[in-house]
Amino acid sequence: MSPSPVLVLGCGLIGTSLALALTEAGVEVHLDDILESNVELAVARGAGTADPVDAPAVVVVAVPPTEVAACVALALETWPDATVTDVASVKATLQNKIAALPGNERYVGSHPMAGSERSGPMAAYARLFEGRPWAVTSRAGADAASIARVVEIAELVGAVPLEMDAEAHDRAVAVVSHVPHVLAVLTAARLHGAPQDHLALSGPGLRDVTRIAGSDIALWQEILGANATEVRAVLEQVRGDLDRVIDSIGTDTDRLGDVLQSGQDGTKLIPGKHGEEVAALATVFVSVPDEPGELSRLMAHTGESGVNIEDIRIDHELGRRVGQVEIAVVAAQAARLVEALTARGWSAYS
Amino acid sequence: MSPSPVLVLGCGLIGTSLALALTEAGVEVHLDDILESNVELAVARGAGTADPVDAPAVVVVAVPPTEVAACVALALETWPDATVTDVASVKATLQNKIAALPGNERYVGSHPMAGSERSGPMAAYARLFEGRPWAVTSRAGADAASIARVVEIAELVGAVPLEMDAEAHDRAVAVVSHVPHVLAVLTAARLHGAPQDHLALSGPGLRDVTRIAGSDIALWQEILGANATEVRAVLEQVRGDLDRVIDSIGTDTDRLGDVLQSGQDGTKLIPGKHGEEVAALATVFVSVPDEPGELSRLMAHTGESGVNIEDIRIDHELGRRVGQVEIAVVAAQAARLVEALTARGWSAYS
Repeated sequence: MSPSPVLVLGCGLIGTSLALALTEAGVEVHLDDILESNVELAVARGAGTADPVDAPAVVVVAVPPTEVAACVALALETWPDATVTDVASVKATLQNKIAALPGNERYVGSHPMAGSERSGPMAAYARLFEGRPWAVTSRAGADAASIARVVEIAELVGAVPLEMDAEAHDRAVAVVSHVPHVLAVLTAARLHGAPQDHLALSGPGLRDVTRIAGSDIALWQEILGANATEVRAVLEQVRGDLDRVIDSIGTDTDRLGDVLQSGQDGTKLIPGKHGEEVAALATVFVSVPDEPGELSRLMAHTGESGVNIEDIRIDHELGRRVGQVEIAVVAAQAARLVEALTARGWSAYS
Repeated sequence: MSPSPVLVLGCGLIGTSLALALTEAGVEVHLDDILESNVELAVARGAGTADPVDAPAVVVVAVPPTEVAACVALALETWPDATVTDVASVKATLQNKIAALPGNERYVGSHPMAGSERSGPMAAYARLFEGRPWAVTSRAGADAASIARVVEIAELVGAVPLEMDAEAHDRAVAVVSHVPHVLAVLTAARLHGAPQDHLALSGPGLRDVTRIAGSDIALWQEILGANATEVRAVLEQVRGDLDRVIDSIGTDTDRLGDVLQSGQDGTKLIPGKHGEEVAALATVFVSVPDEPGELSRLMAHTGESGVNIEDIRIDHELGRRVGQVEIAVVAAQAARLVEALTARGWSAYS
């Protein structure tokens, strides 16, 4: 039996998306937010009802990071039979604060690994969590039924629950999310002062490395501040590697090679699609005129080939109306795709 | 009149791609390589002829970085009327070496900003240079006719020639290419030792930041070594910013915010598609079942909407057969695309 009713406190992107997904899954969802207009928008989008609820099975706290602890405390006190969870992206400090509260055994932390560059209820989307990891930070003293309810919420919205303790979670996101964010920022920060004709040499690699540096600054100030200890520890290791590169560049090719090797090996550790090991993929390159419908025509022809597309990248180019498209497919199928596309008049190679 | 005949020395990815493109453009292309098998493959692919040439108009030196200077010297001596260029990715030191040689006025350095994770003549492709920046490093003392010939070669293969001096080029690629490569490597290197369930929290942001760290190590040892002075100078600025982050994280939110702001501003300096200013784009999100043909069907429906696709990103997801696709379009057209896709049964939002 699904946990119901669910009360969602905070109708931003995550709260409203979750409410939409739970409503679609048949759960009775109640909504509240300090901003009445957010609740109205979320209700108008079909995310649930603004009516008060007497005895929610689960309360999901989806408010800004700095407000979470106080809001969880209030929820534990107000609804003495409810499981309470939150969606903040840093967990250990928060959990320690809550562990001192009456009813803390009914609290289980969550962190759905989902987001968007947009925010607010109008950006919300029921499928935001589909296939995404959802960390559930269980701990000694937490009520087994409450853990089960939070895991069920994650599964109901299509996420993949991963139980881990709060400290492990915070170490993990420092490495896979927070430090990559800082290094993207440091890369982009070096572009200031470069003349326009220097920047004209930019390629797709630079855009990839720096993309996430464009994210919301206030949110990242809060996230990095909340996970300061873990992030600082990893950044100090980065500084060690950076010093090794600075010392060895132009003087010690082998030592530089060791750092490059360590990075190349690291890329192979990232789990592939669907959490499987990375399959051996090959890239098929196709020239596509940059006109409405050409890309669609290419995709249609690709579909007719029966070869499944693993990934697509459009290489933005400088000074002319043409694009190169890179289509990633399982290596064994690349020749088949090239043949099918060439037969249909495309300039394709692998 | 196009410069012809052209002799390409070195039948790797770049040399053979250039030979293919020049042959397509009607130029008489001769090929040579220290590896006879490379020449045979390039000839078999239609890149030109292995016959010797008496008086090439242009000699393109496309050999590995450490061999370029000697090969240019030999070319200047052997063909006293030829313009000689190369395609190495670092220019100033090389140019200084060549400036001391007899005939140096006929040398003009090149750096086409094009490549692939693959190498060798079989990976070559005539359109590799289409729309890509092609740095032409002119200098005092270079023969105007030779500069014009190299610019013409770049234009013949569809590249966008950008004249700049060698020192400016090397400073530029340090910032837009070499340092981003190092920071991608440092990010990926931190993944070692992380338990599998930590890595399971990885998202698309991490994959973007680290992608180029998977590139060929020997090549990058040579590139970074050749541009050591410029790269080290920028990396020292990165270390300054890194120290600021380490010092301010968890203690000085404003100072941390300044670095984040500097990175966010930096992302806006990267030229957009076709060298234009970045247009205001909006992202349309669509859920797509991960089955052969579904993505193609989506693209076909997108094409029927008449809205031009600026970019596509497939968000790889964990543990289930579904994908979210992000389609970037000009902001004013996003609503039209959402409407068209929704009418055809897709779950789309913007």
